[in-house]
Amino acid sequence: MAIKIYGSFRSPFAMAAGLAVYEKDQEFELVTMNMKSPEYMNNINPFGKIPSYQDEDIILFESKAIMRYVATKFEGQGTRLLGSTVHEQALCNQWLEVHSHSFTPLIMDIFRAIFRNPEQPDVSVLKPALEAFEKVLDIYEARLSASKYLAGDSYTLADVAHIPFFYMFNALADEGSQKILTSRKHVYAWIHDISSRSAWKKLTDRPDNTYYKRS
Amino acid sequence: MAIKIYGSFRSPFAMAAGLAVYEKDQEFELVTMNMKSPEYMNNINPFGKIPSYQDEDIILFESKAIMRYVATKFEGQGTRLLGSTVHEQALCNQWLEVHSHSFTPLIMDIFRAIFRNPEQPDVSVLKPALEAFEKVLDIYEARLSASKYLAGDSYTLADVAHIPFFYMFNALADEGSQKILTSRKHVYAWIHDISSRSAWKKLTDRPDNTYYKRS
Ligand SMILES: N[C@@H](CCC(=O)N[C@@H](CS)C(=O)NCC(=O)O)C(=O)O
Ligand SMILES: N[C@@H](CCC(=O)N[C@@H](CS)C(=O)NCC(=O)O)C(=O)O
Repeated sequence: MAIKIYGSFRSPFAMAAGLAVYEKDQEFELVTMNMKSPEYMNNINPFGKIPSYQDEDIILFESKAIMRYVATKFEGQGTRLLGSTVHEQALCNQWLEVHSHSFTPLIMDIFRAIFRNPEQPDVSVLKPALEAFEKVLDIYEARLSASKYLAGDSYTLADVAHIPFFYMFNALADEGSQKILTSRKHVYAWIHDISSRSAWKKLTDRPDNTYYKRS
Repeated sequence: MAIKIYGSFRSPFAMAAGLAVYEKDQEFELVTMNMKSPEYMNNINPFGKIPSYQDEDIILFESKAIMRYVATKFEGQGTRLLGSTVHEQALCNQWLEVHSHSFTPLIMDIFRAIFRNPEQPDVSVLKPALEAFEKVLDIYEARLSASKYLAGDSYTLADVAHIPFFYMFNALADEGSQKILTSRKHVYAWIHDISSRSAWKKLTDRPDNTYYKRS
């Protein structure tokens, strides 16, 4: 059975799962299903969220669990994604958690503020969200001035997890808001670097990736 | 250098990190520091949260990254915590994510509702939080009727992460609320099993664990 990812490229978590598959030189089919249907919740993911993953051996949900599984299953193929040393492996895990607990909640607040009114987002919601996010980005800037990638010298899942969110931010946020990224030299160079990889280009070039195309 | 865990046993995340260390037959020192002090934020954890971890090789934050590091570093010692098969390893990772994204937010809402007014928690906050949490527990019940532990036959970090939260729940919630656990046969048996382990008893018996003692 070919690899299936249940979800849609509207979801940055689904994009991250797909990117991990591509970094491992594997192919996958994107399966769109109603995630609240009994069919999906009984057979694939009882929590009714996307993405989920299926291959001949396993059904799995939660994007970071999917990414780790793919990184381990195809260990000898494509890009090594778990760090090259015990130290990098630990920091990969640490920054994956930072992504979950510090990065994602704030950038999702920003996305929600924009989605609610794309033409004229409510400044009273957007501004504090951007400010809180900037404090987190300052910590990224410090980290990325000391090492090329979040975990160290190696590109890892910690970087993979972030890419789709910057892609969405780039598509959704206005020029003023973009400054929170462009003004942070090391963050900006890092985003450029990790977004230039062929696996990511392959993913964004897919015809079913239609949601956040840059204008 | 002996292992240091920065934090306090008031934090269930710090307890989980300590428990992982004990399951690996290692000792640790609990270091209490002001987590918003420049000393802590500059040298240990720029996010100003607990727990953090230090040994002769690394400084690390985020409880799940700490637990994974300890499980890997002391792989041959104490309890194996990462699953015995590729399948269990994947499900350990999946349920650690479920803990982060579905379990913790809801049980923390319940704790906050109780902390705000321990004698008489606001029912209008507590009731919907308990109801939402029950839906998640139904998924746990289904899972634990099919396997002894979250990841399968083996006790793993996925179980470790949950124990301190049930301990807090047991200490804080009233008898009526406890029913959401006692009424779910497999969940309740699982909690009993994982809370009976000697590493957990050793942690709760520490003199610096003074916050959630059962009355
Ligand atoms: N922690 C999950 C987050 C997944 C998630 O929140 N997906 C959203 C789409 S971006 C979803 O399924 N939302 C529907 C819902 O929560 O009901 C992961 O990393 O896979
Ligand atoms: N995702 C973190 C959560 C840690 C956390 O939220 N710790 C709380 C104590 S229970 C804390 O440090 N709160 C202070 C703050 O967030 O400012 C982990 O797993 O370590």
